[in-house]
Amino acid sequence: MNREERKSAPIGVFDSGVGGLTVAREIMRHLPNENIVYFGDTARVPYGSKSKDNIIRFSRQIIRFLETKEVKAIVIACNTASALALEVVREEVEIPIIGVVEPGARAALEATKTKKIGVIGTEATIRSAMYEKIIQGIDPEVTVMGKACPLFVPLVEEGFAKHTVTEEIIDFYLASFLKTDIDALILGCTHYPLLRSRIRAYVGERIALVNPAYETAMDLRNLLQVHDMENTDTNQEHGMYSFYVSDAADKFKQFANSILPFDIETTKQINIEEY
Amino acid sequence: MNREERKSAPIGVFDSGVGGLTVAREIMRHLPNENIVYFGDTARVPYGSKSKDNIIRFSRQIIRFLETKEVKAIVIACNTASALALEVVREEVEIPIIGVVEPGARAALEATKTKKIGVIGTEATIRSAMYEKIIQGIDPEVTVMGKACPLFVPLVEEGFAKHTVTEEIIDFYLASFLKTDIDALILGCTHYPLLRSRIRAYVGERIALVNPAYETAMDLRNLLQVHDMENTDTNQEHGMYSFYVSDAADKFKQFANSILPFDIETTKQINIEEY
Repeated sequence: MNREERKSAPIGVFDSGVGGLTVAREIMRHLPNENIVYFGDTARVPYGSKSKDNIIRFSRQIIRFLETKEVKAIVIACNTASALALEVVREEVEIPIIGVVEPGARAALEATKTKKIGVIGTEATIRSAMYEKIIQGIDPEVTVMGKACPLFVPLVEEGFAKHTVTEEIIDFYLASFLKTDIDALILGCTHYPLLRSRIRAYVGERIALVNPAYETAMDLRNLLQVHDMENTDTNQEHGMYSFYVSDAADKFKQFANSILPFDIETTKQINIEEY
Repeated sequence: MNREERKSAPIGVFDSGVGGLTVAREIMRHLPNENIVYFGDTARVPYGSKSKDNIIRFSRQIIRFLETKEVKAIVIACNTASALALEVVREEVEIPIIGVVEPGARAALEATKTKKIGVIGTEATIRSAMYEKIIQGIDPEVTVMGKACPLFVPLVEEGFAKHTVTEEIIDFYLASFLKTDIDALILGCTHYPLLRSRIRAYVGERIALVNPAYETAMDLRNLLQVHDMENTDTNQEHGMYSFYVSDAADKFKQFANSILPFDIETTKQINIEEY
């Protein structure tokens, strides 16, 4: 690829399923010129209850797929894969890769005054303690309290975000935070921003809710600037977006259309195990 | 394999994860001489929200794996795979294969007097309408009402079976059945027997709860008799059981030990995508 080709090459964004669309949405909003190839691993979703070995293997396959699309950079738009696979795969590929955990950790550090931060995420993300490692690597005086909330993802995926049971489950998982003086809570799973207003109502205004998606888009912008690979072709209204999944393309499309600011036209299903 | 070797060969039992252990448990109880090789596809669980194409592909890979263990018969201990893949894979392999849907359908037909049967299951199972097809193939006068209950599996897997929110979610899914005169309700997902007492408390005594697991073990017994391949080696207290998963062997073992009548010693993790 020459320099001009590289500038117009797409960004690869991947997630275990639909959750990463909350990150893609921020990239579309703040880097409107960039083209995006999104992959959702809907055949093997969810990642949050699975092992590090398999999450690394899944991530490698997806990166190999994205490389066939000649992406210029990759965003792991999944907290679990960012926490468990990013360190390993970053060493293996030449194109720059960022995740959502580092940006989320930095945003939380900016938000906290009490130096006490809560993190909610999948079982695998919380077990990895990756948010804690990164936060304490920057400021060792900060206390980090993690809590796995494994039912939040199915609640969102099954359309229970607005149902009353969700309040009880939020209470079940988050009650222990209310007794502490944390003043920032990281929504450490890309599905959780879709529960933001319910979580806000429960925790009140004292606790800032940190969504790593915005900060990740800002990180991506910096990365593109540093490597001089921002897309400067402003002839189109916005970038070109293509969507790939490993299963159930129609269901994905429906969900995507409910959370993206425009309707996506096609989603292609591929066999990710072949990569 | 000669005749004696075939008799002592194991039964292959598979499921998307741990749920099929409720079927394996019935086989252990009623066919105590039989050896079992169990496979749980924990790397790709759950199946219930995924497409027919992928469920067929997953089932083929698992059958190829079980064939390497020289099983004499296969039980698909997963309603979703039984409903979506059994018809196709049965044509492709020589060893006899049974699923849980046919036995469950027959058991419900025996239980109903009103000729109105309810079925609960995953999204994919209910969409397939396979229970309805089989029931109406036997008795066209029976009415079948299906309802997908996608949150039941995560509730069980996350240990919420006894939590109060489960009652509200049961009410959400099952309220419409109470207004009908169904008198049999098929627990059409291998996880649901683990919610049996909660569902019983909600629907009352008027409705029989049908668990296909027992009937499946009886079907397996018939099948082995017909093919003259029952294991007649009664030297051991019970059969030999081996457990394989595609992810997180330790977590599987823990769950298995909580629902089987004895502690399992080892669970091996394999890469099912290689089959």
